[in-house]
Formats: sequence, structure tokens, C-alpha cells
Amino acid sequence: MKTETTIQGLAASLNPARAARKIIGFVPTMGNLHEGHLSLVREARQLCDVVVVSIFVNPIQFGPNEDFDNYPRTLEQDSQLLAEAGCDIVFAPSVEQMYGKSPRLTNISVSEITEDLCGLQRPGHFDGVAVVVTKLFNIVQPNYAFFGQKDYQQLAVIRQFVRDLNIPLEVIGVPIVRAEDGLALSSRNGYLSEQERKTAPVIYQSLKNAEQALQQGEKLSEVLANIKAALTQAGFVVDYVEARTPELQKIDEFNQEIVLFVAAKLGSTRLIDNMQIKPTA
Amino acid sequence: MKTETTIQGLAASLNPARAARKIIGFVPTMGNLHEGHLSLVREARQLCDVVVVSIFVNPIQFGPNEDFDNYPRTLEQDSQLLAEAGCDIVFAPSVEQMYGKSPRLTNISVSEITEDLCGLQRPGHFDGVAVVVTKLFNIVQPNYAFFGQKDYQQLAVIRQFVRDLNIPLEVIGVPIVRAEDGLALSSRNGYLSEQERKTAPVIYQSLKNAEQALQQGEKLSEVLANIKAALTQAGFVVDYVEARTPELQKIDEFNQEIVLFVAAKLGSTRLIDNMQIKPTA
Repeated sequence: MKTETTIQGLAASLNPARAARKIIGFVPTMGNLHEGHLSLVREARQLCDVVVVSIFVNPIQFGPNEDFDNYPRTLEQDSQLLAEAGCDIVFAPSVEQMYGKSPRLTNISVSEITEDLCGLQRPGHFDGVAVVVTKLFNIVQPNYAFFGQKDYQQLAVIRQFVRDLNIPLEVIGVPIVRAEDGLALSSRNGYLSEQERKTAPVIYQSLKNAEQALQQGEKLSEVLANIKAALTQAGFVVDYVEARTPELQKIDEFNQEIVLFVAAKLGSTRLIDNMQIKPTA
Repeated sequence: MKTETTIQGLAASLNPARAARKIIGFVPTMGNLHEGHLSLVREARQLCDVVVVSIFVNPIQFGPNEDFDNYPRTLEQDSQLLAEAGCDIVFAPSVEQMYGKSPRLTNISVSEITEDLCGLQRPGHFDGVAVVVTKLFNIVQPNYAFFGQKDYQQLAVIRQFVRDLNIPLEVIGVPIVRAEDGLALSSRNGYLSEQERKTAPVIYQSLKNAEQALQQGEKLSEVLANIKAALTQAGFVVDYVEARTPELQKIDEFNQEIVLFVAAKLGSTRLIDNMQIKPTA
């Protein structure tokens, strides 16, 4: 496995593969890798000839009160995990390598589907994601790009701008990886105290209960209220509990496939999760 | 020369060239071609193995009171000119082919350098240009893209977002082509009455006079005022007369290379022109 820290170095590393028309798979990450990321890498390994993983903590997707400075940077450990998972090239650029010295004047924004859920609490976040992901797509020029379904709204935003801008690649969404107790894997789980870590799986449990209740015919509005109540009782400060179509349109009734979304704070750590739920046949 | 009207058809036409790693040159146009466009095609022909020209009147770069519906569409004549100039593939998609049926939610905006000159009178215009040019770049995936210096601000905007987004191609600016009397060639010249057409070269003459005056040491502010006066006297309604650095930064004195910009209406036709002026050695 090679590690490249410059755009030019990466281009040189990828050039033989490109010349040979090999299939290039790309997994963008912010590092601090866990089994969720590694499942993306393994999926890419299955589908592609060459697997590129980027590790870049993107400053412009963090809000002023968010954890950019303290976001965990664990390149050595990440590299070892990536080598084992079958990554061919790690791209780990500096902020200056990605954004240069002269000011960036260009922004990419996606309307409507960024305006609520996580977008409401994180203004500018999805613009920052759209810009960095577009830049990385243009640098790597992959055939396939892999994203986790845990950040479901992010995945929807990326699918949207890829389609709207005719970016020549296919976006693949990969299912959430969970701990044995159901907690969705996330770099931010590392911020939880021991006690909080024991409470955190209540999110998953409340989503599973909701699934069962919905499939037994309970009203969607009641099910959402029950998730909120369960989280609040467990000590979470709920940001939102929402039901949407898979394309993120609002929905009042459970009469088609839906996605339930949860964002809630435990202490100072904001956790998100989601679950796709189909009506029973 | 081939004509393709679908993205899929163009991809199929370009695939052999791409597989053979040929150099692809791209000239985006809105059709109604004149010698200015053809000079771009000839430049591309010199530099590239395969020359693609798009003809697409892009609705989203026209304001509500602009001339989208009446913009001249002359595909047959354009195709003949392109064949003679050495174009290999004409890409002439429909609006639906470019924008699809479901609503576009993604926007690309460039700040600062779009906020005055033509941006002031044409809000949203450069967003529309940025979106369609990005889409076309992703569809054609050229090595080189050619734009006229007549739309100098547009060229600067395109250079900016190509750099900011790491779009993997080189932008080439090609000098303005002028009629014998100095009028910069433009599709909009066709809107001029016979009398207006005789007046129109005053723009070029006033820019040439300004160049001479500056090089003889006249103050920049006076030179700009003289251009305005000459245009107004000739019957133009002046939109702006401005001096900028080549990177579009404001400038008060002629102590480095500058660009003079003019936008003015003659009857209902808005004409623009510009001239790069260097201090004499």
C-alpha cells in the first residue's frame, strides 16, 4: 500500500491504472477509522481493481463551535487497518494541499434536502461536504465512490449533486455497521464516557421498537413521539426524530418504505442514526 | 464530423478516443457561430487530437428579462462552419437532456469576482454559467477547454472554479476577434440596426484612445471618464466603464497591466468589450 500526501503524487501513482483503464474505487474518509469505514473499503475491494482511500479532516464542513481542532487524527493506526482491508493507495493531503494559499471563492450548495435534519443545526455543513467531495472526485477521478448509509442525509446530498452536475462516477451506499449492542459505529463514539457508552445503544433500541410498532400498525406520529420519549428518559437531549421517504421527502404516514432519523446529544457528544423500514408484505 | 444530441451518444462517440488516451479539446458555445467561435475551434484543432464543440443555449444563465427565447438558433449553418473549421464532434443536446425531468437542487456560485461588472446587472448569470460549464466538463471530460477573452469576466470565473474545484483540465483563453472596424464579434451584434451597427465600433475606438492616453501618462480616472463621455455622446447608455487587474481586482492607477471593461446599451442591445493594456517599457 502506498501513501500519497500531494495531488501530484497521487496522480503519478494512479496514472498507470488509468492508462490501463482499470476500475478505480474511492472511499473518502476523515480518518479515525472503524469497522464502518473498513466495510466501505472491503466493498470497494470487491468491485474495483484499485482502491483509493482519502483521509482528510475537512475544515470547511465544521461549524465554528464544532470539533475540528479536536477531531481525532490517527493516521498510523488508520494506515495499518487500511492495508489489512485491501486498500491500495492512501491519500492523506494537508489542508494547504487541498485548499491552496489563495482564497477559495467557489461554493457548491444543494437546496431543499440540506435545509432540515442535520442541516438545521449545522449551517454550511453540507456546502463544505459538497465542495470537498467534488474536489476529491476531481482529484481521484474514480469509477465508483463509497459512502456509509449512517450519514444518510450526506449520502443523499452527494447523490443529488453527482446527478445534477453529471459527475462521471457511480455512488454506492453501504449499510450501517453496528456494535454488538446496536450502536452505529462512529468516530464520535470515542468521545463518550463509559457511562454514556452504555446509554448510547438506546438509540438503536428505540429505532428497532419503532420498526416493530409501525409494522404492527401503530400511527407514525405516535411512534416518533415514543422514540423521543425513550431517548429523553435515557438522558439524551433530542435534536430531531423524523420520518422521511428514502429521497428525504416529508411523510405523515407509514404507507411506503420510510427512513427514520434520529439526532441526539449525550453529554456533549452528538450522535446520529437512521433505519430504513419497509411495510410488511 | 459527427453530431450527437444525447450524453450517452457523445460518450459512445468519445469512448475510442478516451481509450486511446487521445487529447480531447472542448469548445462550449451557445451556437450562432461567428469568427470568434471559429478561432476557438481552430486553436483547439492545433492543440488537440479530437475537437468537441457544444451548442447549447443554456436557459439558467439568462435572466427573466433577457433574450433566452429569442436567442438565435442556427444549428444547420453552425454545423457547416464547424465542419470547415475542423470540429470532430458537435454536441447539441436539448434542455431536457442537459437538465433532466426532476428539479436541479445543486448550485455553484463564485463570490467576489462575480459581484460587479456584468454580475451587477445580471444576478444569477454566472451561477448559471458555472453550473452548465461544470456539467459540460463532466460530460465531455476534455483535456483542454477554450473560451474567448471577449467574455473576460466569464473566463475569470471559469478559471476560478476550475482551480477551486480541482477540475482536471486546462482552461485556454483566446484573444478577441474583431470586425475590420474594430467591433468585437458577438452573436448579439445581429440584433443591431444598420445605424446602430455603424455606431457600435465607438466602443473599440474609445478603448484604443484610452490605451494611447494611458500610455502617454493621462490619469486613469480621467481616461475612464473620457470613455464614458465618448460612448454617451455616440448614443450609448453606459452600464459600466471600469479598470481592473487581470485577476479582476479593483485598481486606481495605471501602474501595472490592467484590463479596461466596457458594457453599454445601444438601443435594446447590450454590448460588452475589454482591452488588456500594459505600461510601455
